[in-house]
Amino acid sequence: MEKKKVVIALGGNALGKDIEEQKEAVAKTAKVIVDLAQQGLDIIITHGNGPQVGMIQKAMDNLICESENYKQVPLPTSVAMSQGYIGIDLQNAIKYELYARGIDGKVSTILSQVEVDPEDEAFQHPTKPIGRFMTKEEAEQSEANGVHCMEDAGRGYRVVVASPMPKRIRELQTIKTLVGAGHIVITCGGGGIPVISDKDGRLVGVNAVIDKDNASSLLAAQLDADYLIILTAVEKVAINFGKENQEWLSDLTVEQAEEYIAQEQFAKGSMLPKIEAAVRFAQSAPGRKTLITLLEKAAQGIAGETGTVIHS
Amino acid sequence: MEKKKVVIALGGNALGKDIEEQKEAVAKTAKVIVDLAQQGLDIIITHGNGPQVGMIQKAMDNLICESENYKQVPLPTSVAMSQGYIGIDLQNAIKYELYARGIDGKVSTILSQVEVDPEDEAFQHPTKPIGRFMTKEEAEQSEANGVHCMEDAGRGYRVVVASPMPKRIRELQTIKTLVGAGHIVITCGGGGIPVISDKDGRLVGVNAVIDKDNASSLLAAQLDADYLIILTAVEKVAINFGKENQEWLSDLTVEQAEEYIAQEQFAKGSMLPKIEAAVRFAQSAPGRKTLITLLEKAAQGIAGETGTVIHS
Repeated sequence: MEKKKVVIALGGNALGKDIEEQKEAVAKTAKVIVDLAQQGLDIIITHGNGPQVGMIQKAMDNLICESENYKQVPLPTSVAMSQGYIGIDLQNAIKYELYARGIDGKVSTILSQVEVDPEDEAFQHPTKPIGRFMTKEEAEQSEANGVHCMEDAGRGYRVVVASPMPKRIRELQTIKTLVGAGHIVITCGGGGIPVISDKDGRLVGVNAVIDKDNASSLLAAQLDADYLIILTAVEKVAINFGKENQEWLSDLTVEQAEEYIAQEQFAKGSMLPKIEAAVRFAQSAPGRKTLITLLEKAAQGIAGETGTVIHS
Repeated sequence: MEKKKVVIALGGNALGKDIEEQKEAVAKTAKVIVDLAQQGLDIIITHGNGPQVGMIQKAMDNLICESENYKQVPLPTSVAMSQGYIGIDLQNAIKYELYARGIDGKVSTILSQVEVDPEDEAFQHPTKPIGRFMTKEEAEQSEANGVHCMEDAGRGYRVVVASPMPKRIRELQTIKTLVGAGHIVITCGGGGIPVISDKDGRLVGVNAVIDKDNASSLLAAQLDADYLIILTAVEKVAINFGKENQEWLSDLTVEQAEEYIAQEQFAKGSMLPKIEAAVRFAQSAPGRKTLITLLEKAAQGIAGETGTVIHS
């Protein structure tokens, strides 16, 4: 029998806030991953990179301020850097956890690019703040150069970029080859390096940030996975969240989820995009399920004991 | 008949000096790579990362100066970052060149760690300067914290790290799997992320820089490659370089090469390590050859028309 395939989208706490914390955080994350691998699942891991790519962009932006020898580092370049160092830390932690349990497992990291549509309307309305804080004068200068900026919660001005929908995982075949060869594969870090295909068929990086859960949902569908697990800061999804009639949900059909979305039950920029990504995978083919839960509850969630499952 | 396998170690000019130049440089490099692929060779590509990792370390070091929220970014982390963004640019350039010639080729980038011996005597004599320039006071402070520093050519003080010999390519199986599946594989960037295996079997990054040609020589031997091509700034190797009796070499046995090494014919830190890496591969098994030449002469070199070949 073919093994069940699961795409696991790690949340921010799976990686910690900085490079030092990351080493400790990934050790804990690795235990959960290997627990799932021991259940006989083929595993593909994706992860966020918000704080990490923020640090890289800030460091690189500072270099430009310091000397004219340095030019702006494009966001896709910073995403590639973050995929590199996060991937290796995760890979080593999982590899060690396998080794410590006497399993000779294979783990690899695939740098990956996710293609978006240059006509995606998100490019008309960039909303995602990135990089260092600027003064109003710097922001105006940037705007004059065609770079969108926005005042960010009273803390100064920042560049804002678009968050378009992922259309195609460019390294899909490589991921399939390695999953087929028995590897746990880490990929689509930070939602993937955002690229468009130009008129000549050349891949070109774009200043954008792809939502990690959306990229994971697409990846899971394209890999013909059985499960998508979105790990986050709550054990279950709730409706009427924080109110007297708050209700935790264990099981949700696509139709129910869409109704709750229409009722604006889920917070924008927080639970809403997760539910939307979950629904998109669950409705992509019969039998596909998305589980939303805490990192430490993932194995129980797969066993049907906790978390929120969204299915068709 | 099995295809011949070649490991190509790209020199600095294959990548350019900064992020902008890199995009142009890799387009030219890709043409050479695809010329070789069209000769029916299996190709594995390695590359340096000196200027790139220098930029990353400098940017990250500046962050520490700016705020106590930031900690020192370990060198292996910076190497992983550089592998990420260089790999993707190279991969896209090769992929595009294949596409432009109507070839549906597969290209992937494997982040890779190279294990060194913690007892390597290079750790007793760190010689490789990295990162930003410091004042004498900062250098003394660093020394007091156990970090080796050295005055660098009148320009200030810098941290120096060891350059130990590579012992094991940790991602060898992944590379083999992808080469076997017909991929052009980019790996061992910057000589690989330097790691040691601790007493528990955990891979731990070390502050070191692995010579890219040494790592390439080991990779070629472990992949059972037929050729190692070391691309550099000269078309051929010379003896009595720059003297009246200068002589360009086309063909060199391992024994001849060793004799010239003993005569100190090759410049330390420049041609010498390349010749040593070349010899190591050529003598690792019968039939293995190393070619040293210019990037743009690689195809002619493989055809036996130019370059310097070192063989057993």
